[in-house]
Amino acid sequence: MLNATKPLTQPSSLEAMTPPTIRLADWTQSMERSMLRQMLAVVSRPGILSFAGGLPAPELFPKEGFAQAMAHVLATDERALQYGPPFEPLKQHIVRLMAERGVTCRPEQIFLTTGAQQGLKVIARLLMDPGRQVMLEERVYTGIQQVVNPYRPQVLTVPTDLDLGIDIEAVENHLLAGVEPAFLYVIPEAHNPLGVSIVPERQARLVALARNYGMPLVEDDPYGFLRYEDSAVPALRALDENWVIYIGSFSKILAPALRLGWMVVPESLVGKLTVIKESYDLETSGLIQRAVSAYLDAGLLPSHLAGLRQEYKRRRDTMLAALDRYFPEDACWTRPKSGMFVWVELPGEVNTADLLWQAVEEEQVAFVPGTAFCATGTPPASNCLRLNFSNCTPENIEEGIRRLGRIVK
Amino acid sequence: MLNATKPLTQPSSLEAMTPPTIRLADWTQSMERSMLRQMLAVVSRPGILSFAGGLPAPELFPKEGFAQAMAHVLATDERALQYGPPFEPLKQHIVRLMAERGVTCRPEQIFLTTGAQQGLKVIARLLMDPGRQVMLEERVYTGIQQVVNPYRPQVLTVPTDLDLGIDIEAVENHLLAGVEPAFLYVIPEAHNPLGVSIVPERQARLVALARNYGMPLVEDDPYGFLRYEDSAVPALRALDENWVIYIGSFSKILAPALRLGWMVVPESLVGKLTVIKESYDLETSGLIQRAVSAYLDAGLLPSHLAGLRQEYKRRRDTMLAALDRYFPEDACWTRPKSGMFVWVELPGEVNTADLLWQAVEEEQVAFVPGTAFCATGTPPASNCLRLNFSNCTPENIEEGIRRLGRIVK
Repeated sequence: MLNATKPLTQPSSLEAMTPPTIRLADWTQSMERSMLRQMLAVVSRPGILSFAGGLPAPELFPKEGFAQAMAHVLATDERALQYGPPFEPLKQHIVRLMAERGVTCRPEQIFLTTGAQQGLKVIARLLMDPGRQVMLEERVYTGIQQVVNPYRPQVLTVPTDLDLGIDIEAVENHLLAGVEPAFLYVIPEAHNPLGVSIVPERQARLVALARNYGMPLVEDDPYGFLRYEDSAVPALRALDENWVIYIGSFSKILAPALRLGWMVVPESLVGKLTVIKESYDLETSGLIQRAVSAYLDAGLLPSHLAGLRQEYKRRRDTMLAALDRYFPEDACWTRPKSGMFVWVELPGEVNTADLLWQAVEEEQVAFVPGTAFCATGTPPASNCLRLNFSNCTPENIEEGIRRLGRIVK
Repeated sequence: MLNATKPLTQPSSLEAMTPPTIRLADWTQSMERSMLRQMLAVVSRPGILSFAGGLPAPELFPKEGFAQAMAHVLATDERALQYGPPFEPLKQHIVRLMAERGVTCRPEQIFLTTGAQQGLKVIARLLMDPGRQVMLEERVYTGIQQVVNPYRPQVLTVPTDLDLGIDIEAVENHLLAGVEPAFLYVIPEAHNPLGVSIVPERQARLVALARNYGMPLVEDDPYGFLRYEDSAVPALRALDENWVIYIGSFSKILAPALRLGWMVVPESLVGKLTVIKESYDLETSGLIQRAVSAYLDAGLLPSHLAGLRQEYKRRRDTMLAALDRYFPEDACWTRPKSGMFVWVELPGEVNTADLLWQAVEEEQVAFVPGTAFCATGTPPASNCLRLNFSNCTPENIEEGIRRLGRIVK
């Protein structure tokens, strides 16, 4: 019966030795492994003092409280391990949590995700057509680039002021020129990699532009609950419920391995996002949803967050003081009010990608070169570097910046 | 400063009352909510005896063993809540598990996923270009259609014999005609929705065709470990490691809410799949990976699987006996050796989509009409229905089929 012998290629002795392989989609020819991820793999070897990753401090994870919540759920909730719809009590917790960011919303506007990265992915899928425009800051989180690049978009870029946040006039000039981007992506609080927060006056102008020009803002807010100054600035979503798509995450306030995040969106989009998400992973783990909800039921988050803020503030202050002490006088860096990162600009013709290998080899200390965060077609930021302060003890921050100071001088 | 007052539309009193809304991607105009998912929402109301879903039996979940594994991990593993690479010990467990399906593989060929649905999504992303061909059976799992439809593919369909599995000659005829599909998707063991398993002789012919024509087979195997007869038939992947992409899942053998699955792929594809997956959800929950690995460390899976097989076999046998007793003599149905589903073909001009509402209203019993599983452009299967036997007790199966028999007669 079986006569399926049509050869893939004309037989020859050479070709017989090199078997045919699976044909991949055309777009994979331009696929690139994230430079950041490759780098992190290299510099995370033992003995390296690393300011490279964006990792929270594992010693601050609420292990006991979460373990109790998980055990409670597994012991008492019959539906904890089954397929099921999004867990309503968790949505209600998130509504209350959003009030801390100045946001009024309803459970019907909450869309649960398998981490904030999935939020970026599903909203891009919903809004982007191939080749469409998208607006990004020149220095931008790598994860959004991985999401938009497969659409081969026209990337419109805008600079960012290191004290005040995104350049509103640059945004407006694009819009006045008639662009119609699928969205503008922004981290208004504790920008990754820059560490800057958009000042309130610019927030208001940005939201007004979005509304007047019909340009959605995708607000990525993983660090919004980690503010170290008294004055809390509300999220962009507090200013507009129609044009701001808010993306939140439990990764930095509870733990990354939960892979749990949320979006606050116009209710009319929830059904469509659900269809998109189903094709990606059916649904987010009901077990994790219930365990986090039980943790929140127990009222443990406020004190946990207070502890996180206290310790991260200490680490930030240690890093800023160490930079003052050990870095060249003509270098400059951001002084973040929140989040996990400091952005450093070195003077002169230095290339921080070269410096990185020197730092790792000679001083066993690591960072991420600025070039890793450059949006397509923007200047390379080759004299810049990103430093993380959440994942090292103050002692190691002091020691690491001292070593790094010897390299950059 | 703010003069962003360009209106989106020409002002008029009517338009002033209907605010502009976010422009969605063009493809969303043809987006459809899965008929199956909508239906499941309706028929899952309390009091309905449902054979509709594809849910495992929650009373058989290994709750205590898994809770102990989870507690152990949270108490002892410093990295359980942090970002991290795929957990190697879990990959090694999966390699051993695959031996039960007759598959020899290495940890370097294992790719961990956030459930099998993500496996379908990432492999389609890797292999499909827009408009490319894909080969599906006429009756097919809805989740693969949700994955391929956004590529607007040319869908090549083949019938399935209800005793022997996929029609090999139909596959071969397509290939002889010169088609070059991105892949053929197939559930060789315990087809969803048909309940049929491909007989070994056809398995061998299918793999030979794949190899000779260079057509990848995507083998979806969520039910392969749930076989109720003595003779275990190996997975397709046992027959070829280059042309078979294997997709496995813990959803049906442990619990769906873990959202944990795996793929067995040529090692050369792992790096590319990693890049794709990063843009979707960065990584699969390290906590869940470790908890499942700890559960497997404890050696609890073999006895758990034995218990599952025993109970599901009892439910299958109960359903088949009840169908013999209560269904019309000229109806016919599959007699599955494995999995969770029986496929029924009713005689005459009946429309099971109409019958469903009658069944729900008059007899409080539910199923899924055959039309939900039809690949694009195939005959509608309107006289068919899918019955699930894993999610009801034998008593409820007997009672539910009795009620359904009154409707279909």
